[in-house]
Amino acid sequence: MPEHRHRIRVRYVESDQMGLAHHSAYVAWLEEARIEWLRTIGQSYRELEADGVLMPVIELGLTYKQSFRFDDEIALLTTAEVLGRTRVAFTTRFMLASQDEVRAEGRVVIAAVNREGRPQRIPAALVTILAS
Amino acid sequence: MPEHRHRIRVRYVESDQMGLAHHSAYVAWLEEARIEWLRTIGQSYRELEADGVLMPVIELGLTYKQSFRFDDEIALLTTAEVLGRTRVAFTTRFMLASQDEVRAEGRVVIAAVNREGRPQRIPAALVTILAS
Amino acid sequence: MPEHRHRIRVRYVESDQMGLAHHSAYVAWLEEARIEWLRTIGQSYRELEADGVLMPVIELGLTYKQSFRFDDEIALLTTAEVLGRTRVAFTTRFMLASQDEVRAEGRVVIAAVNREGRPQRIPAALVTILAS
Amino acid sequence: MPEHRHRIRVRYVESDQMGLAHHSAYVAWLEEARIEWLRTIGQSYRELEADGVLMPVIELGLTYKQSFRFDDEIALLTTAEVLGRTRVAFTTRFMLASQDEVRAEGRVVIAAVNREGRPQRIPAALVTILAS
Repeated sequence: MPEHRHRIRVRYVESDQMGLAHHSAYVAWLEEARIEWLRTIGQSYRELEADGVLMPVIELGLTYKQSFRFDDEIALLTTAEVLGRTRVAFTTRFMLASQDEVRAEGRVVIAAVNREGRPQRIPAALVTILAS
Repeated sequence: MPEHRHRIRVRYVESDQMGLAHHSAYVAWLEEARIEWLRTIGQSYRELEADGVLMPVIELGLTYKQSFRFDDEIALLTTAEVLGRTRVAFTTRFMLASQDEVRAEGRVVIAAVNREGRPQRIPAALVTILAS
Repeated sequence: MPEHRHRIRVRYVESDQMGLAHHSAYVAWLEEARIEWLRTIGQSYRELEADGVLMPVIELGLTYKQSFRFDDEIALLTTAEVLGRTRVAFTTRFMLASQDEVRAEGRVVIAAVNREGRPQRIPAALVTILAS
Repeated sequence: MPEHRHRIRVRYVESDQMGLAHHSAYVAWLEEARIEWLRTIGQSYRELEADGVLMPVIELGLTYKQSFRFDDEIALLTTAEVLGRTRVAFTTRFMLASQDEVRAEGRVVIAAVNREGRPQRIPAALVTILAS
């Protein structure tokens, strides 16, 4: 499974009074990277939800080694791993788009659930791609 | 209609690299003040929505005179005005909780709509209180 | 002065339980559009700040006609107007990137100030471009 | 070290189109709980920063078992643990204010650094209280 590369630029609103990108902003970036990753493999997360496949986050981990600042362009490199029938883990490295040094790492586990919040299988087409 | 007073404290995440509360944070504070205001008159906005009365914002205005900072305690003083059958305006003055000087002012117009987004009357009980 | 066009895509985190892009998200989008607009004319807002030219928002207005949803691609069309020596107004129309209908409009007035918060002139180079 | 209890109420802006409190909101709540916890032991985080003691987050972990919704009142129960001379871990359980069931758990490691980002000792007064 090749790594997915996504770029974001730190918004001003995401800066804090330390002059750094606030640590909560990374959570939204992980989500954006995940959704763009799905788009590149032909899966619209909007349509998945419309079809009754919801993917709430059930686990989140982040380690921050070096900070980012407003206006930095960040490359997010994401890989996915199928965890059984109902869960997927996404692991992401954050680096400046212009450099190779990993500044932060994140891992998110999502669970496929239906509209009532009960676990359901990840759609087969998605598993095939993720597990390839 | 007496003014409703609500207090919030500026979160760290709401600070920006200028060292000020970011101008977008005021929008969330206005919303919180509005919802707490409804609560004090016995109207849960959660229940209003569950009953099919949605209240999206259709107009927003803010003027910023003096800034706030992380950890400041802010008093929001809000009054409401019924604008016809389907709209309400909320006007809010922002000041430090410990002072009387108005540092910012906001005005939000909300429209009552149903789940399909069509205008509907504001519930009579609510109008009665708002117009009193 | 030609209009500046910027595109954003509504993030999942920007959706709310009405299923719409929350009205506060537009404020961050306006900011991003403004900063990208400056970049296209050769002005890095990061560098302006580093040089001691801060540009806090002193006025904000938004009208919401039709809503956006998660995953919508939005085109923001922005024009600028110099208001005296220390202020600039940015006016933005929001539309779906694939359509021509204006769904929301925003206007932001920013004031150039120094690090102590005192008004200062907008840099001449910037005025020249903005007023051209 | 007794547990610190802090309450927050889920803001509307923190809801998402699944109808749940978005998973990124917990990060801001953890921060608020931590700062209020410091306040109760007589340490203003604003003053710590003004004195040159910055406390960026270097590690974040969250597990989400049961979700929260807009308007829920959440109790955050936080304990702290000193990790050597320059780090503190804060562990938090999230539950509905009206119930005893833990719905989510979070852990944040912060590092004391100076304005240049170099590690520095946590102030002795703070260590004494945290380690008691």
